Amino acid sequence: MRSAVVRGRSRTIDAGPYEVRISAGLRSEFASIIATVAPAHCYAVITDDRVGPLHAGPLMDALASHGRPTLHTMPAGEAHKTRDTWARLTDDLLAAGCGRDTTVVALGGGVVGDLAGFVAATFMRGVPFVQCPTSLLAMIDASVGGKTGVDTQAGKNLVGAFHTPAAVLADVELLATLPVEHRRAGLAEAIKHGVIADAGHFAELSESLPGLLAGDAASTLDAVARSVEIKSSVVRADVREHGLRKTLNFGHTIGHAIEHESGYALLHGECVAIGMVLEARLAERLGIAEEGTAERIERILLRAKLPVARPESLSAEQIVGATRLDKKARSGSAEYALPARIGEMANAESGWSIAVADAAVLEVLA
Amino acid sequence: MRSAVVRGRSRTIDAGPYEVRISAGLRSEFASIIATVAPAHCYAVITDDRVGPLHAGPLMDALASHGRPTLHTMPAGEAHKTRDTWARLTDDLLAAGCGRDTTVVALGGGVVGDLAGFVAATFMRGVPFVQCPTSLLAMIDASVGGKTGVDTQAGKNLVGAFHTPAAVLADVELLATLPVEHRRAGLAEAIKHGVIADAGHFAELSESLPGLLAGDAASTLDAVARSVEIKSSVVRADVREHGLRKTLNFGHTIGHAIEHESGYALLHGECVAIGMVLEARLAERLGIAEEGTAERIERILLRAKLPVARPESLSAEQIVGATRLDKKARSGSAEYALPARIGEMANAESGWSIAVADAAVLEVLA
Repeated sequence: MRSAVVRGRSRTIDAGPYEVRISAGLRSEFASIIATVAPAHCYAVITDDRVGPLHAGPLMDALASHGRPTLHTMPAGEAHKTRDTWARLTDDLLAAGCGRDTTVVALGGGVVGDLAGFVAATFMRGVPFVQCPTSLLAMIDASVGGKTGVDTQAGKNLVGAFHTPAAVLADVELLATLPVEHRRAGLAEAIKHGVIADAGHFAELSESLPGLLAGDAASTLDAVARSVEIKSSVVRADVREHGLRKTLNFGHTIGHAIEHESGYALLHGECVAIGMVLEARLAERLGIAEEGTAERIERILLRAKLPVARPESLSAEQIVGATRLDKKARSGSAEYALPARIGEMANAESGWSIAVADAAVLEVLA
Repeated sequence: MRSAVVRGRSRTIDAGPYEVRISAGLRSEFASIIATVAPAHCYAVITDDRVGPLHAGPLMDALASHGRPTLHTMPAGEAHKTRDTWARLTDDLLAAGCGRDTTVVALGGGVVGDLAGFVAATFMRGVPFVQCPTSLLAMIDASVGGKTGVDTQAGKNLVGAFHTPAAVLADVELLATLPVEHRRAGLAEAIKHGVIADAGHFAELSESLPGLLAGDAASTLDAVARSVEIKSSVVRADVREHGLRKTLNFGHTIGHAIEHESGYALLHGECVAIGMVLEARLAERLGIAEEGTAERIERILLRAKLPVARPESLSAEQIVGATRLDKKARSGSAEYALPARIGEMANAESGWSIAVADAAVLEVLA
């Protein structure tokens, strides 16, 4: 990662009750910031078996000057974002002697953040936690907004809690070790932020795409910062997802259904990419989106080498069936957050989402 | 239960964000109140296999005029207050087609309330819930204050969440089916409220004890109402238990340890009774409580036929060991909330609790 030029450049975004700090090289300050924003007797660092060996060592060493650090490692991957892993991590903390005076630190991607956040939300009825995202997806999206949770057999994120982090600390240099397909997957959520709220961000992402894919630190820092600004302003306006926050679900009704039905063989961002194209196409058919919206989204995703079509192994019927398991499904019908055009979402008058009949979705999926 | 005289008498206590309504015969209004304070598409009633057969039928029928009621039954008893039962109940709701537009109704004692509350706190990241306590302990104590959770192998209530009910609805006539030992156990928490905050309440309980044990509706209604007033005013002052709320833990450090070590063979209220006597004695030895405090507490508990001494099957060492698992244990030492005299707690200056050395506790337990 070419980061020398951006060393020292940093961005701090006020996400309401907490700050998101983004810079190249921030990891050397992780421990001291954690100890300042969420001082505790015990610092329980939760990571996975991919990220831990790469990045946990220096953090544990640095935390030792501020309290008692304990390390808790889960297997990597969405398939492990379960109640069982949550229970095992909780028991691990208890066995390590962590009490109420504990701060949980999530060091990893979106899965680690969601799980560690749910551990923190429920450990002794709630202890503070700090997010140290190590994937582009987690920096851009998952670590911001206070949603925590796990999947069940019945679907994604069906069990969880809102639990606001004390801080989100993103060091874009940590992305140097991120596999390129994870970098692509992260960009899907950045592109989503452009579609739902900011045509300028969409255009900038399109322009800086080569640099972003190559791991250029300056472009990455800018893209992460703008995405976090968009997401956190949406979340601040509607923490509990009664209205505006639903716009963040663009691409996710179909995306989650594909992710679940594929048995988590596809990355979350890949599923969202497919979901955005199909849902934008659906919006066009329903006369909700400007013509060409889906095509513009498809074009940038293809340039990012992200998938844009339903996997052949899954039938249209299977995917529509799985949308019914979505949290956003009400009274038996699935809800969609749909765009009006790049940079603007539709259906403000009905709380930013509408119920769509299965038949219309099946047509688009066929 | 002689309730004709109190029919129509009712008390409503403002517990801050919600109301506690107490009356004789309130159950006929449960459904309409629930549908008013927490309207939903699905009403998921959670109960246990002791209370359900007695009281769930009429509630389910009445809820059917307001939405789709679903019934979810767990085995009775603290031994089932586990993550496994929580996961099974959650899966039950999902299998019944409950979505985000669900209100959870807890119909049962403290265990059902704690579990149903934790299901509500974590189902789809939180749905509303209403407490309909059916035991004296739950009416007096457990249903008020927003604490939800489950036990783990390592100790009581180590996993959970703060989740405020939309309302607490207590029909004292439901206590007619409550086994007498559960009535006694409930009184232990009422007596605790007298000790920690109101010598007048303590005296009134002492006077009305025969009526309370016999199930007199008028005395029961008064005792429940005063206890709820005390508890909710403490909770309102300190929801997250950073200070004053700790006074509610009087009797619970040793009480929880005994409860855990006995494998939940003793009722929670019975353990709190023992805990109060031993902790009051500890407070006297430490020069914190007025002489005679422990004896006055012991006397009223004996009249209520509650246990007041360590069970012979448990050693003093074993109990002290288990106090270390308490959430309130910090940095390896156990914290105690101790009385100054009947009606007043000590240690306001140190946040209403103090760390006590094992040796002193062992002496009292020996």
